[in-house]
Amino acid sequence: MIYLIKIYHKVKMKIILASSSPRRKELLKMIVSKFDIIVSGVDETLDPSLTPQQQVIRLSNIKAKDIFDKTQESRVVIGSDTIVVKDGKIYGKPKNTKQAKQMIKELASGNRTHSVFTGLTIIIEAEGKIKQYKTYDEAKVTFKEISDKEIDKWINTGKAMDKAGAYAMQEEFGVFVERIEGNYNTIVGLPIHKVYDILKENKIIKI
Amino acid sequence: MIYLIKIYHKVKMKIILASSSPRRKELLKMIVSKFDIIVSGVDETLDPSLTPQQQVIRLSNIKAKDIFDKTQESRVVIGSDTIVVKDGKIYGKPKNTKQAKQMIKELASGNRTHSVFTGLTIIIEAEGKIKQYKTYDEAKVTFKEISDKEIDKWINTGKAMDKAGAYAMQEEFGVFVERIEGNYNTIVGLPIHKVYDILKENKIIKI
Repeated sequence: MIYLIKIYHKVKMKIILASSSPRRKELLKMIVSKFDIIVSGVDETLDPSLTPQQQVIRLSNIKAKDIFDKTQESRVVIGSDTIVVKDGKIYGKPKNTKQAKQMIKELASGNRTHSVFTGLTIIIEAEGKIKQYKTYDEAKVTFKEISDKEIDKWINTGKAMDKAGAYAMQEEFGVFVERIEGNYNTIVGLPIHKVYDILKENKIIKI
Repeated sequence: MIYLIKIYHKVKMKIILASSSPRRKELLKMIVSKFDIIVSGVDETLDPSLTPQQQVIRLSNIKAKDIFDKTQESRVVIGSDTIVVKDGKIYGKPKNTKQAKQMIKELASGNRTHSVFTGLTIIIEAEGKIKQYKTYDEAKVTFKEISDKEIDKWINTGKAMDKAGAYAMQEEFGVFVERIEGNYNTIVGLPIHKVYDILKENKIIKI
């Protein structure tokens, strides 16, 4: 998906998105017209002792912190991480198509409702002072019944592989989503409504 | 918003979308690669004696029927209509910027939650037989608090005017949407999950 971009908010300082996700990039364009993307190579292994909320905050923080430490001067670094959770089981990005199929099968069976958790860390250095925001957002997604043939067709588009839970509701897969409860952009991968509030509070975007 | 289009489902017969909405066009592209757009010029005045559900079904039907009657041979005509309802008051497309501002102000005040109703009519003629589907979908949207300055800024983008309720959550306005309950695409303007089911049931798209 590509958004038509319009310069909307005037940006006063350098903004860095610490993510390679094209979805996060498009969402950030909703509120800022110019920013850099620097991708962190940190270890994204989950810590089994943590809750889903703690996992996504931790990983968003590791990503943001890594890029913050590698850059200088006045800047805002935005890190984010998304996981899918159903019946206590955590789903990250699938390692192969077999695993991707299995993920969709499990998410589309039983009660067919799962949670999406997205963590958000924003680190701001302005006039020598450092501020750090750590938060998360949860949204619920309910799938329709999906046949094996439909799952295969989706997996064959090649779009399942780099997404937590092996799906993206903004792609063709969207027809299999019955309903959501919560913030849509949190599900896509970046709670842009929260990013907006933090940047506004810090006068990084001018209203 | 523009989607990257990939041919996904093979289409067997002519499909006509009876709507000028670029959002509906993009959503239909999620499931069919080729279709015509023919815009109906029918009177879209609301009938005050009807419920919101009846309004959107009626208008989606008038639009689809008009185009169906003007075309021949095997075809599928898709008509849709969207309204916003809060505290019993119906919000269609604003007539001017003053009305657009007023709409957002009202939707963002009080409980800040409103309903979006989208009606859907699909008329299919195949092998001389005519089938008609009429349905609707409802979703709830909760706004954040929005300042007058932020409302002005949104209205000044010029994107408020052709939308029911004077907003589009897939545009910059998306940062003011706290949460939704229901189907995202119903809010955008076309319950594509329902279109998919009807076209699948009629083997118009091949899985």
